[in-house]
Amino acid sequence: MPTNLISDADKKNLANSAAGIDSDKGDARTKAVTAQLLYRLMQVIDECDVSMDEFWAAVAFIGKAAKNEELGLLVPGTALEHFLDLRLDEAERLAGLNGGTMRTIEGPLYVPDAPLSKGEARMDDGTDPGEVFIIEGQVSDEDGKPIAGAIVDIWHANSKGGYSFIDGEQAPYNLRRRIETDEQGRYRAQTIVPNGYGCPPESATRQLMTALGRHAERPAHVHYFISAPGHRQLTTQFNFTGDKYLYTDFAFGTREELVVTLDRVVDADAIRNAGLNRPFARTTFDVVLTKERANVPQTVVSRAHVTAG
Amino acid sequence: MPTNLISDADKKNLANSAAGIDSDKGDARTKAVTAQLLYRLMQVIDECDVSMDEFWAAVAFIGKAAKNEELGLLVPGTALEHFLDLRLDEAERLAGLNGGTMRTIEGPLYVPDAPLSKGEARMDDGTDPGEVFIIEGQVSDEDGKPIAGAIVDIWHANSKGGYSFIDGEQAPYNLRRRIETDEQGRYRAQTIVPNGYGCPPESATRQLMTALGRHAERPAHVHYFISAPGHRQLTTQFNFTGDKYLYTDFAFGTREELVVTLDRVVDADAIRNAGLNRPFARTTFDVVLTKERANVPQTVVSRAHVTAG
Repeated sequence: MPTNLISDADKKNLANSAAGIDSDKGDARTKAVTAQLLYRLMQVIDECDVSMDEFWAAVAFIGKAAKNEELGLLVPGTALEHFLDLRLDEAERLAGLNGGTMRTIEGPLYVPDAPLSKGEARMDDGTDPGEVFIIEGQVSDEDGKPIAGAIVDIWHANSKGGYSFIDGEQAPYNLRRRIETDEQGRYRAQTIVPNGYGCPPESATRQLMTALGRHAERPAHVHYFISAPGHRQLTTQFNFTGDKYLYTDFAFGTREELVVTLDRVVDADAIRNAGLNRPFARTTFDVVLTKERANVPQTVVSRAHVTAG
Repeated sequence: MPTNLISDADKKNLANSAAGIDSDKGDARTKAVTAQLLYRLMQVIDECDVSMDEFWAAVAFIGKAAKNEELGLLVPGTALEHFLDLRLDEAERLAGLNGGTMRTIEGPLYVPDAPLSKGEARMDDGTDPGEVFIIEGQVSDEDGKPIAGAIVDIWHANSKGGYSFIDGEQAPYNLRRRIETDEQGRYRAQTIVPNGYGCPPESATRQLMTALGRHAERPAHVHYFISAPGHRQLTTQFNFTGDKYLYTDFAFGTREELVVTLDRVVDADAIRNAGLNRPFARTTFDVVLTKERANVPQTVVSRAHVTAG
């Protein structure tokens, strides 16, 4: 079947009609974006000569992913979540905003309202046989001034790559904590070195990745939201040097500025000083928040989350 | 936030990367279409300055529609199903195929394997208080030659606009029948004049239509699949003159060539001759099938259906 069977004008007219552009009711913004979305989708169908069978197979795929609660996985897997980050980076750069720690994707597995503590937290419940991991860091502003009372909201996978509330295996809020920075803007977490997350074997997302000749794995990472009054909330994560999937993250979340190196501590005195009784890993992850200002898109994103309830 | 923050080349590179274009594994067709789809979606995001909140609201909307089993309603409601028909019309025209009855959308509510009978069928189970309706017609080929043994698969709503297997109120297969044409290619159905279908009050589709300033109603219509060996299967429907929603069908299914006028029969003899005891409506819907030929896209569409099981 040939491509581009329908004229550009006819596509635009049909898209506008479907988006209610000729109606004086409805929401102007929804109409404008819908019109453009439908026009672009019609372009894809026509330029790729998408058959009816292919079209309905794609619809069935989206239906399956949605029913599996996988849309939040499909979005990063298709680089769209990273694309939204790139746009926000660029908008901030154009607004003269810089010097803050780099953002990266939130991913689909954040759960709000993790336990909150001051200065430090033990994140694991002691049942994970993985390597003990101490994360220390300082939150400061663009001028290098420490921010006391910042909230560092951390979540990550266990040593099997699973998340509490998702894998059905861990205690509620295991490896999820909020830590309020101390007077020097510092926070400290004791936890377990995470493993990378892989899309579930039967997931629609993994099925798509396979059809695309890609894997469906993330390198190990630790997620962060960092917020403080008067400052722009930051969504970020760090990865680890040497990870097998570091530069092929299926979710496009790796950014060179956010890769840390683990320091393996085996010295008996250092182990004792850390209050531990076996070798452990540690790293530092400092964060710079930029000051909130007008006329730059907000960084607090309203999206559906898994909830503890 | 400004528009077009990311260059066209960067969009294409990211889309290609997400679609696995640089991988030598996977399915070439899936990769090519996915790359173009992602590129076009990135364009929409960038040219419309879609915020993260807006993006995730759209994802949540699609998730809701999918979980409600509404994707098959959203597709015609956004004119995409009609767009696929327009492309097939044009592909046939370019191939020199013409003279057949016009196609229109299937819609989401077909159920396969309706009861099959020869020559004629009673479609309703006698419980619908609506107006009795006799449909008669002849199936022939492009040369005017009647096609005996064609299968005319008819389905439509009841006088409340509801479909069996969907509304939870009707007997299985009520108003769904397959009729095999007789030696003269004729078929005859006795049924009830349908009412138009409206999207459910709480549906995501109706919610979108309202946001677009549109209604979510279809004019009354009767759906058809017509098939015969050696001929191209036809997916079509007819509508009725004078219907309030005839030219604003939310699903873009109305085509001028497919609008019939109801003949209201009140004459006592005519009523008796029809084997009835009260006034009824009747119409003729003849169908011309074109011969199957190579190098034209097929018209038998593989898509998920509601099933009786």
